[in-house]
Formats: sequence, structure tokens, C-alpha cells
Amino acid sequence: MAAALFDGRLRYVTDYPVPARKPGWALIQVRIAGICRTDREIMQGYLGFRGILGHEFIGVVAESDDPAGTGRRVTGDINAACGRCEWCEQGLGRHCPHRTTLGIVNHDGCMADYCVLPVANLLEIPDEIPDDRAILLEPLAAACEILEQLPVRGEERIVVIGDGRLGILCAWALATVAADVTLLGHHAGKLALAQWRGIKTALATEFAAPERADIVVEATGSSQGISAAIKLCRPRGVIILKTTVAQPQNINLAPLVINELSVVGSRCGRLSDSLRMMQEYPDMPLAEMITARYPLARMENAFAHAAQRDALKVLLDISS
Amino acid sequence: MAAALFDGRLRYVTDYPVPARKPGWALIQVRIAGICRTDREIMQGYLGFRGILGHEFIGVVAESDDPAGTGRRVTGDINAACGRCEWCEQGLGRHCPHRTTLGIVNHDGCMADYCVLPVANLLEIPDEIPDDRAILLEPLAAACEILEQLPVRGEERIVVIGDGRLGILCAWALATVAADVTLLGHHAGKLALAQWRGIKTALATEFAAPERADIVVEATGSSQGISAAIKLCRPRGVIILKTTVAQPQNINLAPLVINELSVVGSRCGRLSDSLRMMQEYPDMPLAEMITARYPLARMENAFAHAAQRDALKVLLDISS
Repeated sequence: MAAALFDGRLRYVTDYPVPARKPGWALIQVRIAGICRTDREIMQGYLGFRGILGHEFIGVVAESDDPAGTGRRVTGDINAACGRCEWCEQGLGRHCPHRTTLGIVNHDGCMADYCVLPVANLLEIPDEIPDDRAILLEPLAAACEILEQLPVRGEERIVVIGDGRLGILCAWALATVAADVTLLGHHAGKLALAQWRGIKTALATEFAAPERADIVVEATGSSQGISAAIKLCRPRGVIILKTTVAQPQNINLAPLVINELSVVGSRCGRLSDSLRMMQEYPDMPLAEMITARYPLARMENAFAHAAQRDALKVLLDISS
Repeated sequence: MAAALFDGRLRYVTDYPVPARKPGWALIQVRIAGICRTDREIMQGYLGFRGILGHEFIGVVAESDDPAGTGRRVTGDINAACGRCEWCEQGLGRHCPHRTTLGIVNHDGCMADYCVLPVANLLEIPDEIPDDRAILLEPLAAACEILEQLPVRGEERIVVIGDGRLGILCAWALATVAADVTLLGHHAGKLALAQWRGIKTALATEFAAPERADIVVEATGSSQGISAAIKLCRPRGVIILKTTVAQPQNINLAPLVINELSVVGSRCGRLSDSLRMMQEYPDMPLAEMITARYPLARMENAFAHAAQRDALKVLLDISS
């Protein structure tokens, strides 16, 4: 099959074997895959992954134990958990120590004609949600995760830093429950696109906070984001940390102790939560995030486009 | 008056002016002062402080607005807050943005014959608590602060890293509410001294955790402590960060995001909490922490002793 293979460098290959499906797992024919910053981090050495890239996808079940499942349009939780440990028993398979992660840890990803995932990980996509919204279910779930981790009452001053795709989705998810959300970034075009439900936007270089924020969401994708977040956060406030970067960062943590800040690492969320949010807020301007689509064979152009300053979400058309 | 002055280098001076007392403040004749790691950090450039060092003291009120207060044996909250802002109204004057901090920020410290503090900051020390226990009220309050910030149910696996004075006090404070507390350090002697209420101890180099901890208290005083804490903490666990160091640290924060850890910065606490703990646990072996006492005039020897590996708490006798 065709695939975007990273084995130290990124290559388009056409002779990769179709993955073997284990019992309880589904073989999925991929329709579209999204390029994420994590894919580009992996290409910089993050987590040492080698294999087929990609963890955002929409596909169709080609084969599973239950023939009735065939043909369902799905996306899936990217963490394939053991199902037996204490984490799995709590419904937190995304922290299972034995898990593999699609396109990230010991598990070939979805930038290929086919990928495999446990049937239990799959989420069927209702007909009213088209592919170019549904492809954002995975990153929107990562935004919804904040609401699972942190009780947000609604009256907090919230600042999201980073006007990339994840930052904008975090601002949107928070704006469903809080009135005072400000998004900071470096790109006027992205900030304009982000305006929804009264979200305030500002160029980070020009932002002068009237007061420091109760909650700061760090979604810059930059090693310096945490330092910026510390400056914006009031004493005893909370920083939600979303950025994972390959390189250790030079950080002064003393203000974190002096001001008794809390930093909460936040990763993937539940697809069922993001699906519910998409259904409840059909006016969330998700489709405007799709910057471009490329066929898989032109993935090098797609990755180059995804790395550009103004890109939000670049898709790969696999089989359509 | 005599004082330990830091003006770029540490000097013993005898001609420093007695501080002026403002209305609402007390002039305190200092009896003993403790040397803290923060004092040594300040000498490395931390917070850019210049002035008389010292923020741990026991003294006697020499003068205040109310003559009846004279002669009381006291220690004091080191943060002199404005008393009017939203933090002060919440009883969190230690986060008041207008505060000064004794011997740390814009406020001459207590390693001198006299110091001044607001009367409201003072805590009278009951007769049954001798000076060499009472001098630990301030650092024990910093340990008690953890219990104010974090709900500890009692069944958590807790690991404290750092067998310095603060690490041991944190272990003791946590052992009053939790059964499974392990203290890790590098000094067999300090670890032996720390054993109280079933606290387990281990050399950090030899420690092999059966399972990762629910709560990790980082009190190493080292820039690498946070990285060690991240390794010891289970997914969705909590790290209490106590160390403030002058230099930015090179840290890989990606595991914090992947494992959705929370890092809670933790600083000073309430003296009334530590006094209550001292009274409730008279067997807490606080006095064993006093490594040595020096007269103020020999403060250079005292600071050298405090920097030694086996030192816990070195005191300066000021007027006795």
C-alpha cells in the first residue's frame, strides 16, 4: 500500500505491507489524514518514533470481527490500551503504560491506505458531520480535555497563547463555558478566523493585560511558551500546558514557586466529548481551519505547506 | 547595630542604623536567626536582593504602638502586605503584589540586632515551645502549605525528594495525615534523623519504586529536582515544587504533558498552622535539626557550615 514513512527521513512509499488485523481490531481504509505539529516534532526526533506517520484520520471500516461493522465511517482514539490495567479500568486507557499510540509510539500511523485500531477505539461519525469537520474531532478532543481536567466555572479570565490550530480549538472549547477568553498569537489572519462567541484576540507583541489571568492555556508549540504563560498568570492561577517539544527547554521556574502557580499537563481527550461539542455547536467555524488538501503522493508539498506560518490544518487525501 | 549585610558580598557590620518603626509595625529585638538555603541563593544573585539577610527569627517585641505588647516572644510572617488589595482581603497577603519580604524583597532582614514587621504579622510563641523548636516555625509553615494547597486523603503514595531541612519537614508534615511517605536523599545521616511516624527513607541513587507515586514533593534545592520528580510521578499525579533556584533550568517538559501531571508551586505557609502542628505533635524531632549555633560576629563560619553537606539548620545567636 501507499504510505508516508518516516525512517529518519520522510518518504512516500507504495510497497508497504497492509497491516495485519488482530482479533478485536479493525482494518480501516483511510480517506483523509491531517498533518499535526506532533508529526513535524517526530521528524525532529520527538519520542524516537519510526514508521508510518499520522494520527488524525477519517476512514471506513474495511474489516473487523463483526461483518456488520464494515463500511462504517469512523475516526478513532489513537491510544491502543491493554484494557486490563488500573488505568484502563478507570476509562483512562490513554494513560495505560502498555499502550501504543497511532503514528506516535510503536504503532504505524494513518498516513497510508490502511491502518489498524481496536474496534473499541472507534467512533462512528454521524452523517451530518462532513469529513472536513470530522477530521478535527481528534484535536478538538485535546481541547475538550482541558474541561475534563479543570473545573471552569465560567467567570474566570482566560488567556490562550498560540494561534495555531490547537490554540484556536482550545479558545473555542473554553468559549463554550466561559465569557472572558482572550487568544494571543502572531498572525492577524489566524486571529481573525478565531473570533467566535465573543473571543477577544490580540497580537502577543501588543497585548497589555489589564490584569493577570486566572487560567492561561499554553498552546504555542514553542519551547518559550511556558515562560510567557508564567508571566501572564496571576498568583495561585493555573497554566494548562499543551506544548510538547523535542528539545529540553531553558526555563526559570522560580516564579512558579513564588506565585504558587499550578501547571497542568494536558494531552488527548475523549472523541465522544468533541463529537458532542461539534453537534451542540454547529456554528463553530471548524471547516475554515482547513488550509489545503493534497493527495498522499504529494505529501512533501503538504508537509512544506503545513510548516508555513499561515497554515492551520493541511489534509492528505488518501482514498476518495 | 550589628548586622549580616549582603551588598554584593556578605559582610558583618556593626554600625548599621536601627530600622525605623512605622505606625502599626513592631521593632523586634532578635534573639536567634536561622540560615536558610534562600539566603545562600540570594548570595548567588536570586531576586537581586541587597540588604540585611535573614527571614527566620525568634525575637522579643522592643517597641510597638501598644506598650502592652512589649516583651512578647515572637516570630513573624515574612511578607509585609498592603492589607488593602484583593489578596490581602482573602487572607493571602503572602501573594500581595505590593508586599515586601523580610530579608528577600525590599525589606531588611533579621540577621541583625533589630528588625521591623507589621504587628499583624507577629505570632506569639507559647512558653512550652523553646527557641530551638520555634525557630523552625517558618520552614515548617512552608511544609504545612502543601496541606493547604492539596487535598491529601491519606492513602496516597507520597515521595519527598531532598533530605535537606525543608524536605524532612515536608515529610514530617505529610506523615501527620498520610501513611505511605518515602523520603529520598543523598545523606544517610539526614535520612536516619528523618525517621518519624513510619516514614520510609532511601538513598536516591538506590531507590527503585515498586510503583510510581501519586504525589511527589520536590524539595531538592537543585535545578535537576523537577526532572527527577517527573520520573517518579504516576500519570495524572501531582508534583509539589518547592525549589527556587537563581538560574534558569534546562528541563524536558514533554513527559509532563504526555502523562498529564500537575506541578503545583508551593512557597510560604501560615505560622498559625505550623504552631498548631508543633503543639499537636510534641514528639516531632525538630530540635535534632539544629546542627550548630554561632554568634552573629562569626556569621562567615556559620554560612560556611550551613553550606556543608551534612548541615541541616545552622543558627545565629544575636542577643541572648
